[in-house]
Amino acid sequence: MAVSYIVNQKSSECDARVGTLKTPHGEVETPVFMPVGTQATVKTMTPDELKELESEIILSNTYHLYLRPGSKLIKEAGGLHKFMNWDRPILTDSGGFQVFSLGNRRNITEQGVEFRSHIDGSKMFLSPEKAVEIQEDLGSDIMMVFDECPPYPADEIYVKKSLDRTLRWAKRCKDSQNHADKQALFGIVQGGMYPKLRKESALRTVELDFPGYAVGGLSVGEPKELMLEVLENTTPFLPEEKPRYLMGVGTADYLVEGVYRGIDMFDCVFPTRVARNGTAMTWTGKMTVRNASYKKDFSPIDKSCECYTCKNYSRAYIRHLVKTNEILGFRLITWHNLYFLVQLMKEIRQAIKNDNFKDWRESFYKSYQHN
Amino acid sequence: MAVSYIVNQKSSECDARVGTLKTPHGEVETPVFMPVGTQATVKTMTPDELKELESEIILSNTYHLYLRPGSKLIKEAGGLHKFMNWDRPILTDSGGFQVFSLGNRRNITEQGVEFRSHIDGSKMFLSPEKAVEIQEDLGSDIMMVFDECPPYPADEIYVKKSLDRTLRWAKRCKDSQNHADKQALFGIVQGGMYPKLRKESALRTVELDFPGYAVGGLSVGEPKELMLEVLENTTPFLPEEKPRYLMGVGTADYLVEGVYRGIDMFDCVFPTRVARNGTAMTWTGKMTVRNASYKKDFSPIDKSCECYTCKNYSRAYIRHLVKTNEILGFRLITWHNLYFLVQLMKEIRQAIKNDNFKDWRESFYKSYQHN
Ligand SMILES: [Zn+2]
Ligand SMILES: [Zn+2]
Repeated sequence: MAVSYIVNQKSSECDARVGTLKTPHGEVETPVFMPVGTQATVKTMTPDELKELESEIILSNTYHLYLRPGSKLIKEAGGLHKFMNWDRPILTDSGGFQVFSLGNRRNITEQGVEFRSHIDGSKMFLSPEKAVEIQEDLGSDIMMVFDECPPYPADEIYVKKSLDRTLRWAKRCKDSQNHADKQALFGIVQGGMYPKLRKESALRTVELDFPGYAVGGLSVGEPKELMLEVLENTTPFLPEEKPRYLMGVGTADYLVEGVYRGIDMFDCVFPTRVARNGTAMTWTGKMTVRNASYKKDFSPIDKSCECYTCKNYSRAYIRHLVKTNEILGFRLITWHNLYFLVQLMKEIRQAIKNDNFKDWRESFYKSYQHN
Repeated sequence: MAVSYIVNQKSSECDARVGTLKTPHGEVETPVFMPVGTQATVKTMTPDELKELESEIILSNTYHLYLRPGSKLIKEAGGLHKFMNWDRPILTDSGGFQVFSLGNRRNITEQGVEFRSHIDGSKMFLSPEKAVEIQEDLGSDIMMVFDECPPYPADEIYVKKSLDRTLRWAKRCKDSQNHADKQALFGIVQGGMYPKLRKESALRTVELDFPGYAVGGLSVGEPKELMLEVLENTTPFLPEEKPRYLMGVGTADYLVEGVYRGIDMFDCVFPTRVARNGTAMTWTGKMTVRNASYKKDFSPIDKSCECYTCKNYSRAYIRHLVKTNEILGFRLITWHNLYFLVQLMKEIRQAIKNDNFKDWRESFYKSYQHN
């Protein structure tokens, strides 16, 4: 089996659990946050730095790699791990999310999606079979089925139709997979914001029997309460013994709430994207390092943080770098943000192990500001 | 004495020599290339990475730091070393070069230069005294006098006038210096492309008695032959026991020729600037990594190079990063380029120690292409 999963401990107070995900490229303790390496690089970071801050698994994007440098080239290089010099687990998305986001540059049929590259406008085609082929060329440890993520809001009839097609496509993905011994293929639950459809999608996806399940179609602009409600109407229909992955979520409070509701894996561009905008993630919420108030602040981003950035550089220096558009500034904040999320997930796992996650969560919110 | 210099060995074949520059922040073996950290950061690199590739001294720019974040702020931070987390020697330029490059945004008088900031247009003023004050606030190990670097070409009358003023300014710089025990102040020889004026500038600058001398006003667009000719008409008039610094030179062949003519120190933005354009420096000349010919080239930039980049990443991967504008691509090439120059200077020093620099230089040119 390409990937196996064991739940090591369950909270007695909520759906949170701690587990181990085993892959051909090593084990991952869950709940885990996966940094995003869209173009075969987690922006600004070397793989060695990711290891130093103890990132255990990263995500990369099929759509982007298919366009540049091309999945056949990466296959020729010996696969994505070798190409980008990362020997730990990789999860690849299916490209579905990006292709559906292309708006009028794509045309959907039952067969798949014809689209025009956002780079040079050339005509391309993605289908369930093609998405699996590309991901097999990339050689990721975990592949995702080719799905449709409906926009928010979307009416129930559209979401139901989309859900049915996503299920047919999931089946086709599974049927076209060649190396289940080396690469796991995860199913994706859709169903928009409709509890009834979420339940249907979950049950029918589980019927197809995947080694793991993602919850897709959330974090697409809906209010937080709605997202959590939908999540509560989804995870109960997923098997306990399989990993659950909430796609596109990466702020501290959402991670905490996702874990609370039984999620094991998360990914998001948030920590790396906001870093390049000069925003640091901290235990008290977001911090806009470029603010004038930090001009002569020679303390680190977070005094209690033991990351490379906080041990060596001041807010004043990082602010100067950000304001002068220096790459080192974006590097240092990215480093801190990813380190922060690694520490957050560590604390979360420890709290679940101690079976006091509810208390921990309460004390977390005492200092954390939703800003 | 802030800075002292010893010539350890002289070539018997040419003016090349090996020496040790002692500063309050450590020793530097010469000939040495100094990476440029314009805005208190050597672009894309952390100070730890610079140490890892064995950079011993860096240069930073008074003009840029005076504008952002301000030299008083850096003084408050504890000086430039502490502000940017670099505990090895720093040389700062005087700001003269940048201010004179501002064209119609500056007005020169005997007192100094009034100019408008290139950032927000605000009126500012630099003078010999002010340039020293700023550099004292920065706390660099080596300060430079506030000089004028005439453009190329420039007529002899203009260059002579400029040379006289630069000498008067050099004297004022020296007179206004407060911490000669902690910071050295180097003089700068000007004189354009006129051998007679170069000799005059050298002799009169040496008369002012500085602990080191720079050759300024070269590498400003003149043909290579002319530059070398002028250099040959300058260094003989500088004292053997003092360090000699050729400003603005950083390509391999120019470094070799500079050393050949008795230069000990060099700086240039070239290796870091071209890296961000996707150009690597190698023993065979420049290599444009973004070229299509490297698309499927899974070998390193330079097989014989032992830098972090060449030990871990392929041309194909770096090309992909550069073409997708990924910061890691610029980081990896910058790392390689700076490492290359460190190795080049090491080889040069070893050849001088072996007293076979002429042979070494010949074999260097056998593989090196001026491209
Ligand atoms: Zn930190
Ligand atoms: Zn190299």
